[in-house]
Formats: sequence, C-alpha cells, structure tokens
Amino acid sequence: MKISVILAHPHKKSFNYAIYETVLKTLKKNGHDVRAHDLYYEKFNPLLEGFELVNGETSDWRIIRHREEIKEADGIIVIHPNWWGQPPAILKGWIDRVLRSGVAYEFHEDDDGSGVPNGLLKAKLAMVFNTANTPEERENEVFGDPLERIWKDCVFDFCGIKNFYRKMFRVMASSPLQEREKWLNEVKKLINTYFPDENQKIENKFN
Amino acid sequence: MKISVILAHPHKKSFNYAIYETVLKTLKKNGHDVRAHDLYYEKFNPLLEGFELVNGETSDWRIIRHREEIKEADGIIVIHPNWWGQPPAILKGWIDRVLRSGVAYEFHEDDDGSGVPNGLLKAKLAMVFNTANTPEERENEVFGDPLERIWKDCVFDFCGIKNFYRKMFRVMASSPLQEREKWLNEVKKLINTYFPDENQKIENKFN
Repeated sequence: MKISVILAHPHKKSFNYAIYETVLKTLKKNGHDVRAHDLYYEKFNPLLEGFELVNGETSDWRIIRHREEIKEADGIIVIHPNWWGQPPAILKGWIDRVLRSGVAYEFHEDDDGSGVPNGLLKAKLAMVFNTANTPEERENEVFGDPLERIWKDCVFDFCGIKNFYRKMFRVMASSPLQEREKWLNEVKKLINTYFPDENQKIENKFN
Repeated sequence: MKISVILAHPHKKSFNYAIYETVLKTLKKNGHDVRAHDLYYEKFNPLLEGFELVNGETSDWRIIRHREEIKEADGIIVIHPNWWGQPPAILKGWIDRVLRSGVAYEFHEDDDGSGVPNGLLKAKLAMVFNTANTPEERENEVFGDPLERIWKDCVFDFCGIKNFYRKMFRVMASSPLQEREKWLNEVKKLINTYFPDENQKIENKFN
C-alpha cells in the first residue's frame, strides 16, 4: 500500500521523531510504499497566500508533489505534538495548502461553497499520533480535546476518509525512558495491525 | 486602554479585513491605544524552531515586540477565517511563538510542565471574530466547532483571561452586500459595548 507519513516536530531528538522512525521502519518492513515527510526538515512553507486561496493553483513544485501523493495514498499517518489543542503551525499550513478543493474534496457544480462537499481522498485509514503534557482527565474536561474533532471530523471525514484511529501519548514531561520504550512498542503493534505485512498477505492468497 | 488587534487573512479585500478596519476605527474613535497587526502584511514567521522551543528565547525583534505588547494589553481582539476548524497557519504560529512560558503563563517552580500553570496575561477581555462558510447547525453537529474550545479554553483561559466573547459571521459565500454591512455594524456595536469611549468614561468620572 502507498502510505503517506507526515511529521511536524522541530527536534530530531524528540519523542515525535522516535515515533516517526518507528512508523517508517515498521511500514517498510511490512513491504509498503512509504512517502515520508518531515515538514521541518524539508522547510515546508505553511503560508497560504491570497492568490493561492482563490482557486488553489500554485507553482510551488513541493506543494504539487504533496498534493499528488496525498491523492494517491492508501493510508495516511500524521505525527505531531499537541500545541494549544492544535497542530504546530507548519502542519496547519500543510492542511491549508495541500488539502485543497479539487485535491481532497470538491463541491457540487451549483454549490457556492456553503454546501456539503464530496471527499476525494481514497485512503482507507488515517492515523494520528500525538504527544502531550496534559493529563487525560484535564485534557477532556478543561480543554475538550479539540484535536479529536479537528482530525476526525473537520479534516479526514470531510475529505472522505471514514476510518480514523488516534493515539495520544502522555504525560511526556514526566515519562521515564521505560515508558517511552513501551509506547514505541505500541506504535509498532498498531502499525502491524493496521498496515500488516504486504508479502504475508500475498503468501496467504496463494496458500 | 491598550488593545492588541491581530488579523490573519491574506486578502486586503476580504471581509476579515473589513472587520479589522472597523475594529481599528472604532477603537481609535473611542480613544484607545491600539496596537494593530496584520500578520500577512508584516510577513510574520510562524515557525517555532527547535532552539526556541526549549526555553522560548529568541533574537527576532518582531517576536520580542509581539510578546511585550501582548503582556501589556488590556484587551485582545483576534480576527480570522475558520479554516478546518482552526486558525490559518500564520496565526497558529503567532500562538506558538508569542504566547510562551514566562510571557503568557508560568508553571510553578517544582512543576515539570505537566501541572496547571498560572496565566500571566492581564487583559480583561479577549474577543474573537471569525468568518465561515459552514452553516451553524452543520458546524455544531458535524464538526463540534473546535474554535470555541481552542480560543476560550486552550488559549485565553490558560493564559489567565476569563472574559471571552466570540462572534462567527456566516455563511460568507452566500451573504449579500447588505448582510455584510449589517455585520460590520454589529462589529462596531460590539466594540462600543466592550471597549467604550475612554473620554466619555473620564467625563463621567468628573460629573
């Protein structure tokens, strides 16, 4: 399967980066065609400018490639820290510029943009891995965990992806190394469950 | 009063810009000390880099000025379109880089970052004006209106601002000129209500 993996964290020594590496390694071991993007590393420009807002057209080849890849993806995996109940700005810009009309969704011909669009993404599953310093109870009660609705409903369901899985690792600030290793094992298991070995699948077909 | 006004929209001909102009004009008429920021116009850099993430230190004088201003603000007004249930990336970056620990909140000395911080902003009121193309019922039922929790709880309450007022103008795509003029009048009235004429207040004191 073609899997797009998007990371938004400025530090290579972050736990987010460790998740990213674990995801990539496990997907590749399982024989998937992986398109990996470390947005900070590739200096992704998150600013949707006025001329691009009007009809989505851009001459930026990096944005064009991102759009082509996300259209082709059979699975999408996003990794980022919870900053203010939202993704980091660089990832918000990825949403703003890559998931445009005609790429990720389309309105009916007679719609002025206020109706219900058709989702265009064909990915069977979208996964989101988050890290946070807020304990679960406080996240849910005080902040209402906006990231859940943002990714599940505002982004992926809107673009036609009905299967969604999200995992938030917390509390990072007080987590010992042992716990973080356990979490990375959990990431590995989740990838093996949702994006299993392609070769085994083929073997199974011939058994 | 010192009022910080933050706009995030790439178009000078947008309704967001018209709200911005109305807000500025009304505040100035009322005698307030206005600090206005059109983030796109000033080419605000929204990327929180790794070195700045660690302790918030930056040598970017524009960020330093933003931080000083927001600390001094008696009122904060934010204006932006609803893009994917979130602010545009440029404004998300303003949150990430300006509202840092030591500026907008602080943890207790023995806190590792997972506890409940003290809000440091002294503004008496934060207002948010949004525009959207999603009808109210669909926004609330399908998407859960993440912007409400984001601004009210995740950002302003976290930073110590308890009074919050938000107004979403919709549906933009199908709104005739007459309706937009009515909306701008509403903006003017809201500003006059929440940030009334400073001179009149002084006159009243002496009456």
